[in-house]
Amino acid sequence: MPSTPTTPTRPTRRFEYVDDGAAIYRASFATIRAESRLDSLPADAETVAVRMVHGTGQTDLVDDLRVHPALVSAARSALRAGAPILTDARMVASGVTRARLPRDNEVLCALGDPRLPALAREMGTTRSAAALSLLEDRLEGSVVAIGNAPTALFHLLEMLLDGAPRPAAIIGCPVGFIGAAESKDALVATDVGVPWLTVLGRRGGSAMTASALNALAREEEL
Amino acid sequence: MPSTPTTPTRPTRRFEYVDDGAAIYRASFATIRAESRLDSLPADAETVAVRMVHGTGQTDLVDDLRVHPALVSAARSALRAGAPILTDARMVASGVTRARLPRDNEVLCALGDPRLPALAREMGTTRSAAALSLLEDRLEGSVVAIGNAPTALFHLLEMLLDGAPRPAAIIGCPVGFIGAAESKDALVATDVGVPWLTVLGRRGGSAMTASALNALAREEEL
Repeated sequence: MPSTPTTPTRPTRRFEYVDDGAAIYRASFATIRAESRLDSLPADAETVAVRMVHGTGQTDLVDDLRVHPALVSAARSALRAGAPILTDARMVASGVTRARLPRDNEVLCALGDPRLPALAREMGTTRSAAALSLLEDRLEGSVVAIGNAPTALFHLLEMLLDGAPRPAAIIGCPVGFIGAAESKDALVATDVGVPWLTVLGRRGGSAMTASALNALAREEEL
Repeated sequence: MPSTPTTPTRPTRRFEYVDDGAAIYRASFATIRAESRLDSLPADAETVAVRMVHGTGQTDLVDDLRVHPALVSAARSALRAGAPILTDARMVASGVTRARLPRDNEVLCALGDPRLPALAREMGTTRSAAALSLLEDRLEGSVVAIGNAPTALFHLLEMLLDGAPRPAAIIGCPVGFIGAAESKDALVATDVGVPWLTVLGRRGGSAMTASALNALAREEEL
């Protein structure tokens, strides 16, 4: 039988640093606002941009950020109405702060679906892309967040051009060197009647995507 | 009763993109090698750097990357011996590709521990920092991966300076504007007898931290 664990005590403090979580957030957001060029964004996207910068440590992220003027209101309304979040990456799903969601919204990722490997082979595409097709019956009115695979964003656009149900909003921030920039250019250039948010170029990923979702989930920053 | 779901078919293809997962990885790694300055790193850290760049879409990440000469061999040996991975962030834990782990290694994050809120209050520090103290009995020989909170990295160093058991390796890549750069400078400057990997400055985060772990878990890139 294991011995009763004792309550650990704080180590002897040797370094100087802020150790209050709320104070860290406040100081971080103030630094970001002082250093970032936020003027070119829709006014209601400012808190979203700040949180995305916070998740990446890079104020110049804002220069590549593009936000459709209807994105923030559409995504907020959908989440307040209980819409699910559909994502291509487990890391995005795990990065959504559940306590910020207005309706305990579902966060869905089909990467673990047992049908997926065979489906991806049959379709001749990546699992990340094929996984979105497994969520097609949840697409209508949802918030779709692509934070990893360019193929998933291309696939989503092709589903919508083929007449799939319309999500309420698309957060399209895949990352990488092969197809990422092109998939985000396609998101901006292709009118599928859904407002979008994206970061042009190679940058992207699960952290900034989850940050965007966390900002959209609740208007209050803290 | 729901109708039997039909197998979805691939949408009509309209965009030109590579849709073969392995081909995307190969082309991505080749692009990164062509564009990154990898010469200043220890030779055995090259695949780690490439995978970290891959996870962020930024070749200049390498310029801020610092790798202790013993880091890669120490981390690989520990993981092959079955060592657990201890992390400060759920996103890091979910980003570790379980199929790459050599011994189905445990990936531990204490953020969900019910004792944590009270412990963090009592210690007067963040939950991310206090959570590491809850894992102190798993520290010896482990691979510790800090991918979010600067306070967690400072706290870890203070635990080690107080005589806590030695992990085999520290991946220290917290992100942000308040304390992140300073915590990583402290990691490099403080000799606690444990090899480390870090990215200096504000950049960091769960994606690059998980990428480093995935590269260390298996030598083969694909």
